[in-house]
Amino acid sequence: MRVLVVGSMAYDSVETWAGKRDRALGGSATFFSMASSRFAKTDIVAVVGDDFRPGDLDRLAAKGVGLAGVEHAKGETFRWGGVYSRYFETRETLFTELNVFSSFQPRVPEALRDHDVVFLANIHPKLQLDVLEQVRGPQFVALDTMNFWIDGERDRLADVLRRVDLLLLNDEEAFKLSKSGNMIQAAKAIQAMGPQTVVIKRGEHGAWLFTQEEAFLYPAVPLPEVIDPTGAGDSFAGGFIGWLAKRGRFDDAALQEAMVAGTLVASFTVQDFSVDGLERVTDADLRARHELLGSVAGNLALPIGAEVD
Amino acid sequence: MRVLVVGSMAYDSVETWAGKRDRALGGSATFFSMASSRFAKTDIVAVVGDDFRPGDLDRLAAKGVGLAGVEHAKGETFRWGGVYSRYFETRETLFTELNVFSSFQPRVPEALRDHDVVFLANIHPKLQLDVLEQVRGPQFVALDTMNFWIDGERDRLADVLRRVDLLLLNDEEAFKLSKSGNMIQAAKAIQAMGPQTVVIKRGEHGAWLFTQEEAFLYPAVPLPEVIDPTGAGDSFAGGFIGWLAKRGRFDDAALQEAMVAGTLVASFTVQDFSVDGLERVTDADLRARHELLGSVAGNLALPIGAEVD
Repeated sequence: MRVLVVGSMAYDSVETWAGKRDRALGGSATFFSMASSRFAKTDIVAVVGDDFRPGDLDRLAAKGVGLAGVEHAKGETFRWGGVYSRYFETRETLFTELNVFSSFQPRVPEALRDHDVVFLANIHPKLQLDVLEQVRGPQFVALDTMNFWIDGERDRLADVLRRVDLLLLNDEEAFKLSKSGNMIQAAKAIQAMGPQTVVIKRGEHGAWLFTQEEAFLYPAVPLPEVIDPTGAGDSFAGGFIGWLAKRGRFDDAALQEAMVAGTLVASFTVQDFSVDGLERVTDADLRARHELLGSVAGNLALPIGAEVD
Repeated sequence: MRVLVVGSMAYDSVETWAGKRDRALGGSATFFSMASSRFAKTDIVAVVGDDFRPGDLDRLAAKGVGLAGVEHAKGETFRWGGVYSRYFETRETLFTELNVFSSFQPRVPEALRDHDVVFLANIHPKLQLDVLEQVRGPQFVALDTMNFWIDGERDRLADVLRRVDLLLLNDEEAFKLSKSGNMIQAAKAIQAMGPQTVVIKRGEHGAWLFTQEEAFLYPAVPLPEVIDPTGAGDSFAGGFIGWLAKRGRFDDAALQEAMVAGTLVASFTVQDFSVDGLERVTDADLRARHELLGSVAGNLALPIGAEVD
């Protein structure tokens, strides 16, 4: 199955304990597609400015990412700058320049409208709805969002949520969206808003998969050192969705495998700046780390349907 | 094997979303022993004031906890008061009155000095050392501590650490003690200070067991509602140490089982105020919840010795 992702392509200026990178390749669609394309053919719908380096498009093309939906607009590419504390407890945003992204109107090329799997990365819910109007009956739609839209566009976000199969978000966002600070309560409340399946990402604490019947915890790969966590969530989503598309199934078993794929892929992203770690990782690397994780993931089923109370 | 615990017995005034309790039975030795005594004969060394309700001693005695080492001093029992936010993100301490605890000098009765397993709950490192001078060659010594001693008594704490087999602490404390914010770095640094084994508790995110060779993650039981988390850590320690004493072994396999025991016991503590949940839980409850957790715990081995890098 083919994957369509709609999101941002950006240049990030990032500082962590390990160093600084200026105008490094970033953006949700970038991280997502570089991860997703490991497992399934992936096409991007996004916008870049006239400062976007052709070499950066080549890096994605080299992974087989389809770029026909990347619009080239006049002006600067979306830019974000931030500084992380030594152990990533906090992140300070130094600047956010939307630039060409501020007037982004996603246009899905005709040839990409029949993709089976659609991932709506974190953009305005109105644009997410626009995309859903353009595609033709995808089998599986997954969504990301952020606090900004949960606070400011709750109604519109609710409209999108009614039309998606899976919502993937971090714990802070899940708590805000559900108005509960309890994981199980939050997941159930979000499922009641539409998506059958909810994935709650908790950074170094791993991620939870909530299906209709069960909950599963997948611990993050414990790393002795992280270089740059930027893009970890989007890489996780890419590995997750790419795996589902590869499998061509969306049942619980496939979702559980997808959690492992997302976990593994994201663990390489954070071991370098920008997409560098993700770009470099080989199938052999993934296999080796999967073995290292051993049977961790597959055995973490917590049958919450049978309710702990 | 028999367990000796040295720590506090207290009256807690606690407020959570679920209600308020005034002068509820608490303290590290109390929670610990009520959990530990499920699995192994446990004796307390602690001090209470003349306001301590005989009925509260009866509650412990009913569980088989040995109270010969409980000193009755003139004055008020140690008291703590605090308020938790709705979902326990924060806890505000309203008051801490050491009372009789301020001049506590642990005296281990002759009959308790040959216990095989000693748990030094969170008290002044000087007192922890005093206890180690009184006992005779225990097979296994475990320790808890807190930020207050890590900041103020680092050298003395280092003296204790050189003499213990296991340190059990939360992530914030581990990061402070090791001066690293990375879990693996922190655990290794702490192991280099003395204890072969380190258990890092992460609240609702579960707990990690670091042995010499490996790391294991045990997720906390996901609960749809928590009533009062006070004593969760001490209950975890009690379940953990009690299980080791019951097994009479301290190898990796026993430590892994102990993590499950601690996890299960603590999950009942947080479902009611004070020791009420812990006091009420039956073996059948524990078994049922263990089954619910399924094979979660035993399969979480992450062979960190083989280093993810």
